[in-house]
Amino acid sequence: MYGATQMPIGDTTMFTAPTQDMLFNITHLTQWDKISALPQYDGLDLDDIGAVLEEYSRFCGEIIAPLNASGDQTGAQYNAGRVTMPGGFTEAYAQFVEMGWQSLQHPEAFGGQGLPRSVGAAATEMLNAANMSFALCPLLTDGAIEALLTAGSDAQKQTYLANLTSGKWSGTMNLTEPQAGSDLALVKSKAVPNDDGTYAITGTKIFITYGEHDMSENTVHLVLARTPDAPAGVKGISLFLVPKFMVDESGALGDRNAVQCVSIEHKLGISASPTAVLQFENATGFLIGDENAGLSYMFEMMNSARYAVGLQGVGIAERAFQQALAFAKDRVQSAPVDGSTREAVTIIHHPDVRRLLARMQALAEGGRALAAFTAGWQDLARHAASEGDRAEASAISEFLTPLVKGYCTESAIDVASAGVQVHGGMGFIEETGAAQHYRDARILPIYEGTTAIQANDLIGRKTLRDGGRTALALAAMIKSTEADLAAGDPIAQSVGKQLSTARAAFETVVAHFLATAKQNPGAAYGGSVPYLMLAGNLVSGWQMARALLAAQTEISSGNSTPFLKAKIATARFYADHILVEAETQKHRITGGEDSLLALDFA
Amino acid sequence: MYGATQMPIGDTTMFTAPTQDMLFNITHLTQWDKISALPQYDGLDLDDIGAVLEEYSRFCGEIIAPLNASGDQTGAQYNAGRVTMPGGFTEAYAQFVEMGWQSLQHPEAFGGQGLPRSVGAAATEMLNAANMSFALCPLLTDGAIEALLTAGSDAQKQTYLANLTSGKWSGTMNLTEPQAGSDLALVKSKAVPNDDGTYAITGTKIFITYGEHDMSENTVHLVLARTPDAPAGVKGISLFLVPKFMVDESGALGDRNAVQCVSIEHKLGISASPTAVLQFENATGFLIGDENAGLSYMFEMMNSARYAVGLQGVGIAERAFQQALAFAKDRVQSAPVDGSTREAVTIIHHPDVRRLLARMQALAEGGRALAAFTAGWQDLARHAASEGDRAEASAISEFLTPLVKGYCTESAIDVASAGVQVHGGMGFIEETGAAQHYRDARILPIYEGTTAIQANDLIGRKTLRDGGRTALALAAMIKSTEADLAAGDPIAQSVGKQLSTARAAFETVVAHFLATAKQNPGAAYGGSVPYLMLAGNLVSGWQMARALLAAQTEISSGNSTPFLKAKIATARFYADHILVEAETQKHRITGGEDSLLALDFA
Repeated sequence: MYGATQMPIGDTTMFTAPTQDMLFNITHLTQWDKISALPQYDGLDLDDIGAVLEEYSRFCGEIIAPLNASGDQTGAQYNAGRVTMPGGFTEAYAQFVEMGWQSLQHPEAFGGQGLPRSVGAAATEMLNAANMSFALCPLLTDGAIEALLTAGSDAQKQTYLANLTSGKWSGTMNLTEPQAGSDLALVKSKAVPNDDGTYAITGTKIFITYGEHDMSENTVHLVLARTPDAPAGVKGISLFLVPKFMVDESGALGDRNAVQCVSIEHKLGISASPTAVLQFENATGFLIGDENAGLSYMFEMMNSARYAVGLQGVGIAERAFQQALAFAKDRVQSAPVDGSTREAVTIIHHPDVRRLLARMQALAEGGRALAAFTAGWQDLARHAASEGDRAEASAISEFLTPLVKGYCTESAIDVASAGVQVHGGMGFIEETGAAQHYRDARILPIYEGTTAIQANDLIGRKTLRDGGRTALALAAMIKSTEADLAAGDPIAQSVGKQLSTARAAFETVVAHFLATAKQNPGAAYGGSVPYLMLAGNLVSGWQMARALLAAQTEISSGNSTPFLKAKIATARFYADHILVEAETQKHRITGGEDSLLALDFA
Repeated sequence: MYGATQMPIGDTTMFTAPTQDMLFNITHLTQWDKISALPQYDGLDLDDIGAVLEEYSRFCGEIIAPLNASGDQTGAQYNAGRVTMPGGFTEAYAQFVEMGWQSLQHPEAFGGQGLPRSVGAAATEMLNAANMSFALCPLLTDGAIEALLTAGSDAQKQTYLANLTSGKWSGTMNLTEPQAGSDLALVKSKAVPNDDGTYAITGTKIFITYGEHDMSENTVHLVLARTPDAPAGVKGISLFLVPKFMVDESGALGDRNAVQCVSIEHKLGISASPTAVLQFENATGFLIGDENAGLSYMFEMMNSARYAVGLQGVGIAERAFQQALAFAKDRVQSAPVDGSTREAVTIIHHPDVRRLLARMQALAEGGRALAAFTAGWQDLARHAASEGDRAEASAISEFLTPLVKGYCTESAIDVASAGVQVHGGMGFIEETGAAQHYRDARILPIYEGTTAIQANDLIGRKTLRDGGRTALALAAMIKSTEADLAAGDPIAQSVGKQLSTARAAFETVVAHFLATAKQNPGAAYGGSVPYLMLAGNLVSGWQMARALLAAQTEISSGNSTPFLKAKIATARFYADHILVEAETQKHRITGGEDSLLALDFA
């Protein structure tokens, strides 16, 4: 389209996963000493993990990333009930399955590699950075595996888990209906018992990611529906497994089930990921777990999915950053403001371009650090030796999950938007590729529960319910890092000061909610998103501060590297430019309730 | 695309211009007593202005707004050098011309209506809110008129201005070349004198808005190029008028000039606005003003255009807000958090939806107030009786222009993004229409000078050059409003407190730059965008505070209306939720320089 000119266009195919940063986080932010001491991970060492990450990085960079822009351009195509994936997707998916990448973090009992979440998180991020539309298929399959592990019968596990774990079959989550988005109480789809123990599922499900496609041999739909005598509301929802193709006792594929894709959506972004409207008409379904307990199973699956969506945010931020950085090093424009030369220089020399890039990098690294820290707690929540340790780790990881989902996805939009800005006019031209990240990122704070839903979860179930115990336990841990920083060099001390201010703001807000939310929930929940953003910012900034200390320790033991020096610089930038937002959020919450309540949108 | 379901889709055709707010701003924020006392505006009263705005509002709402979504969907179409506008655009433009809307703020000498900028600003905003792609054509024509008024010869004015003022002909700005975006020193296009006093223009210009289209009978291209012996850099650039069709002495159209559209861009947004690559091959051009003085004329034109782009930001924020509000009043989902009922309610009852809408509204109204205040100073700068008054008004309006451009356009992205969020999953579906605003808005902080360029202008030419005089004069005016607020009721006092904190942050930052920028420009300019955002936020919040005082005065004189009550509530929300960001910006600037400089993107 853009002819006759030598204007540089971004290279949309390039992506190199930040494996060094990922390995650094696993080493220093996940409590790796405890995780690697768990019997499950006996013999797993950091060198092996590094090798896996490097190999996956090559696969993501060489096979998956180059399909990101072309996939966006072509989009998934619907025709008479079938969906055709963009060129190269089916072949790349076959390689993905062949190489066993779907199985990384799933149990060895069903053919998985049983790696900890701490490692799986890095893998999820890099696949999403390479190609978010592609990565959504494995992401949903991960969720289906979780749900079956949690609530499936032994027979169901035997029939489905091996093929899901390999990626030969893919999974979907069927929650939303036209009248039931965030509010699952409004689900209307019906499940009528058949004589053979199966159910006849009927209803319309919308926004079903990879609800129909041609990459996997079979699709395992997990579907929320109501049995005839189910109670109203969320207590009457059951979870059903509805395969696209029926599976016989030998595991072979049989007839097509009565579920049809009637259309796919025309979306702002992730065009290569088909978002289906599925029509179930007496489709054969199998009850998963107990009747009317579907919501709790779905929540299990959603918690994993929410965390993974947060990683999508980190991934897209990283990708947008890399692309903007490459452009800024290439594009020559204007002499520098300091007058050191009158010649035009590459724009990376211009202060505001540096500021934009610094913010992008700090948010990407900060989000990655938050996600790594959370993954560590997830591993301990599942496998720590004592029930008490598991419970504590579980409370913390559940507190952190809405932060990963909410903060990292809101940041992704911010970063992708900055990426467009760095490109100037070229950023607005689709062929450059920066705009795709801005479009793709916009879904992240919406699906798997909007930021407000995450924030309501954070304030209600995660903060008020335990009387602030978990929130204040985290604050106490942060104070301990502050003490370490205070004992450090001037840079550590200055980061410690910003961390301390942000942590105090967090404590003030928690105390405020504990004192007022019960009496005036409308006011408190009006501050829930600012609270989530404050907490996400704080915990990310805290992890960056921990990373700074770890980097300084390594350097003082003689291991100085450019990576470690850059980590210190980024942590410092994070503290001075991003952590400082915490005070603003505090003011909005503690001083802004009345003005929000006073508004009348009549 | 979205079949078989009853999910509400936003009505993309609806838009009602906020004429009440616009008239309120003209009355209370522009220094209307002084403007209406100018001899130029003798006899112009607020009733007449209200009538004009109402009529234009009907035109924008009924004729232009319904073409916004359809225009986006079809886009401008290129075929063999010609561009076809989307369905309905050409007819709507004919009506626009027929009704004389192009002429509103242009001089009566050339058929204009001679209305002040204070009124023209409201008109520009509403056309852009109705349809930004459409409105870009008149916006560029406005710029061409400005340039000819500033520097055109009498003969050029006679030949071109009447048809530009009527809108029968349209105008363009041809600055950018592949190697010369922000940096016009790099312009290479050539202008070789012909024997008859004209010039032969040769070169490639890119990103030319409405560079080719079929709405107007002729297009007047204003083109930057270099004469053969011109000095290098920006001091060797001249401005040429290059008509698409030559105009004979009788004013009739003659031959096609040698300028061709060789392609149009495939863009993230404003798809209905053709962004052309123009090839000039010995096209006939007429020198405007003096040789080598082109940049200063272009800056004149750009200042108007930059201000107008700020209004585009306000317009798109208003449109996105109206659409999100309508959706939130319609969409039923989830029971309220206060437990007042277990039934699902319209989502406008959910606290975070209210918070999102409140922020959208406050940013739209705040931006409008900032723009109105600025327009008032523009009118005084042009027409105040004494040279001293004109100079003072000019200094202030020039200080404010980068704030209008930078702050209102960055806010537009924020607001459009929040608009998508209010719609939940539906916001990501293109047919809903919320996504278009998010796409369209993204160009605003880029074209006519990126936010960084505005910020460099603000810190360099507008703040440091006069030793902070204008900046501190504004701070003194703000203090006077603070005193009025302090003498008011508790709401006024509380707004005054936030205003005072933000103003003090601004003063601190100005003092910081005055003390350090000369020694360390790289550090200072790294804080230029935070400074612009702080200043834009402050002046918007100040205008909201002035609006609050005016509303309270009207109410206490017995004129209580829902509009006035809402204005008070919005001003209060602005203070408690948005003005509070000023402190964060201050910290970034005064405490964040070292950490930005320490980063190495090698």
